[in-house]
Amino acid sequence: MNMRDIIIAKRDKQSLTDEQIAFFVKGVTDGSIPDYQISALLMAIVLNGMDEREMTTLTLEMAGSGKQMDLSYLEGVPVDKHSTGGVGDKITPILLPLIATFGVETVKLSGRGLGFTGGTVDKFESIQGFNVEVDSKDFPMLVKNTGMVISGQTPDLAPADKILYSLRDVTGTVDSIPLIASSIMSKKIAGGAKAIVLDVTCGSGAFMKDLSMAEELAGAMIKIGNLAGRKTVAVITDMDQPLGRFCGNILEMQEVFDTVTGKGEADVIEVVTELASHLVKLAGKDSGMSDEVLKDEIRARLSDGSCYEKYIELIKSQGGLVSGAGKPIYVDAPFDCMHVNSPETGYVQRVRADLIGQASVLLGAGRLAKTDSIDYGAGIGFFVKVGDRVERGDSLCALYTGENRQVPEERLFDAMELILEAYEIGPNPPEKKPAILGVMS
Amino acid sequence: MNMRDIIIAKRDKQSLTDEQIAFFVKGVTDGSIPDYQISALLMAIVLNGMDEREMTTLTLEMAGSGKQMDLSYLEGVPVDKHSTGGVGDKITPILLPLIATFGVETVKLSGRGLGFTGGTVDKFESIQGFNVEVDSKDFPMLVKNTGMVISGQTPDLAPADKILYSLRDVTGTVDSIPLIASSIMSKKIAGGAKAIVLDVTCGSGAFMKDLSMAEELAGAMIKIGNLAGRKTVAVITDMDQPLGRFCGNILEMQEVFDTVTGKGEADVIEVVTELASHLVKLAGKDSGMSDEVLKDEIRARLSDGSCYEKYIELIKSQGGLVSGAGKPIYVDAPFDCMHVNSPETGYVQRVRADLIGQASVLLGAGRLAKTDSIDYGAGIGFFVKVGDRVERGDSLCALYTGENRQVPEERLFDAMELILEAYEIGPNPPEKKPAILGVMS
Repeated sequence: MNMRDIIIAKRDKQSLTDEQIAFFVKGVTDGSIPDYQISALLMAIVLNGMDEREMTTLTLEMAGSGKQMDLSYLEGVPVDKHSTGGVGDKITPILLPLIATFGVETVKLSGRGLGFTGGTVDKFESIQGFNVEVDSKDFPMLVKNTGMVISGQTPDLAPADKILYSLRDVTGTVDSIPLIASSIMSKKIAGGAKAIVLDVTCGSGAFMKDLSMAEELAGAMIKIGNLAGRKTVAVITDMDQPLGRFCGNILEMQEVFDTVTGKGEADVIEVVTELASHLVKLAGKDSGMSDEVLKDEIRARLSDGSCYEKYIELIKSQGGLVSGAGKPIYVDAPFDCMHVNSPETGYVQRVRADLIGQASVLLGAGRLAKTDSIDYGAGIGFFVKVGDRVERGDSLCALYTGENRQVPEERLFDAMELILEAYEIGPNPPEKKPAILGVMS
Repeated sequence: MNMRDIIIAKRDKQSLTDEQIAFFVKGVTDGSIPDYQISALLMAIVLNGMDEREMTTLTLEMAGSGKQMDLSYLEGVPVDKHSTGGVGDKITPILLPLIATFGVETVKLSGRGLGFTGGTVDKFESIQGFNVEVDSKDFPMLVKNTGMVISGQTPDLAPADKILYSLRDVTGTVDSIPLIASSIMSKKIAGGAKAIVLDVTCGSGAFMKDLSMAEELAGAMIKIGNLAGRKTVAVITDMDQPLGRFCGNILEMQEVFDTVTGKGEADVIEVVTELASHLVKLAGKDSGMSDEVLKDEIRARLSDGSCYEKYIELIKSQGGLVSGAGKPIYVDAPFDCMHVNSPETGYVQRVRADLIGQASVLLGAGRLAKTDSIDYGAGIGFFVKVGDRVERGDSLCALYTGENRQVPEERLFDAMELILEAYEIGPNPPEKKPAILGVMS
């Protein structure tokens, strides 16, 4: 078997055999296949696709290319959640303590973010003292204490995927359903999950721009999950406008606090409730409740203090500081430095999340390169969102930076321009879109 | 401008701009674009194609990536000929002296062969003393003396093409009309040709297996030539069976000698006459003759001794030895070591040239790797070809090796098996195909 023949097979639209895919992943992992052959095959896959069996084999081979976590010490079925990413996505910090109140134990491995805002790990690091560099040998103890652990110290999971991903990034081979689906699923499977809930975001601020693409990606991941023996549910969520009221690190963690204390935004609550209901069921902790009863119960726990208590437990267990009044203490204080006002009167038709994300990065809330530092206080607050009425001169957004950080003034203006472009105002109220666009399993 | 965006543009089926193609070729030549990005773009080109303008720009940029030969010292319009290769293709050694009799001067740069048999340079080296390592500063003197020079010492022509070609070979990106066409044309243009005659071979022993593919490649090269201001003619020739009576190095040079002394095979004469007529016309040396008169004149010069004289002049001018009887002296003597006999009675329907080529390589006539040495005496002689009648037990082929070379006996049997597979015998005479399948310009 040789790599050239494998490339030619895919170039000629053939299905690769399991042996060919195993040969490829092994050669990627051990470095015996040169980059130029890997990238040629990746481009052939982007353009000619892969069938379900190929995707599943690729996923399992990548999952098996390094260490695989053993989560058998968890209560019930080990579950995991993955989001394909978005602007203002603060779901994980709410979801973990929320499902923990049902006895669902989770080990959440999370990378740092690149782009829009920081990742989940960066968001937790905006709490003073919170340690995300947890060694995997401490996971069982932490889970035993609070029911969950969040760590940026991901062990060597799916190294083949890491190699492929870094090559895809520079060779224009990111946009491919089989490659995206197998990359995501390989990490979840290597991470020990036996059941997986996927938040597939869809819209201007997401990787999948329209519903059919999002459904295609969700369908591919579900097929892989099922063929690999993992129960998999995909929730397709709207990312055509930012989620919730804020994007940025501390700003989002403040919104997380509001949500776990019963003052959350409707869209955030809707998404977190949907995802939590599937996780609780898949983990076998639903006590036979009907979907509606379970969801009511989930919503109740956001306002009755039980989710809040778990959230504070999680923060304390990983070294995070909490004030006497029971509030997390952040590493900085967001400074509201500028408001962007509406140039016209009408109804908000759209808030293009991609442009909001770019503006947020300009303010310092996200990284453009892996080595960039983050301004934890930076971000954007939304006074109005799709469907809201504004008068000319009303504030659309507030721009924040950290208290001690000065972004150059022209950056603020660049951010302002992006925001004005992101907001589309029209004379009539737009059709309202739900936050949940579909559930597939 | 960056390479990733260029890859993505082609991945998304866009036409690359002239600036993007120039950036790419420059980066390939100076090594600033890594191999893995080059191969990703190559695969995108294989699968999504290139339009005429893109191919032409790619050709001219590759032609300009190194030294460009100045052939202004030649009499008339500098012409060049290129063949896309085949089994038994001994056209060039006949063609050069043939057109020289019309005053068409040529500088023929030719690589060594890989595959089937040796290249033109290897064939000339089968004559004792013939020096193909000619320095380009000696070209004008040699051309002045005999009207032609043949050299394997190709100056640094189209280095970008060399880099791309070596990468294409290992990344399954050889089979692409735009890449093949631009590769061929870039070398011809860098070699100084102002008019180009292409022998596009077609059939089992050629790169292009069917007529429509051959026409597509020919059409692409003609468009490139025309857009680049080079008059270009393509002659599509049959390579569904080997050309002439022999393949191998000395064996083919012996057939060359027969042809320039009026004893050539019909198919060889037909092809060489067609190509010569276009070259003579494009070089402006046709003295206003009509096509038919010109072709009659060309055929006459093969039998009246004028082509033979020029051929001997060429051999002597590059140090080759000629016997007192006026015959070239070869480095070895082909030894007729085995005949393969027909297993049935009937008419020869096909002689698959690809299998004949493989058998020829097994006998030692060609190289599998660049460092392999060639057995100049090895090769195959064809007693019968398509349309001929054979009785069961008649010889189909003779297998030759060099006099002092022993190929292992099992290789001879492997070659024999390939030959039996190559010859298809049927009860009725097959439809005869002409050697020239079409002429395009």
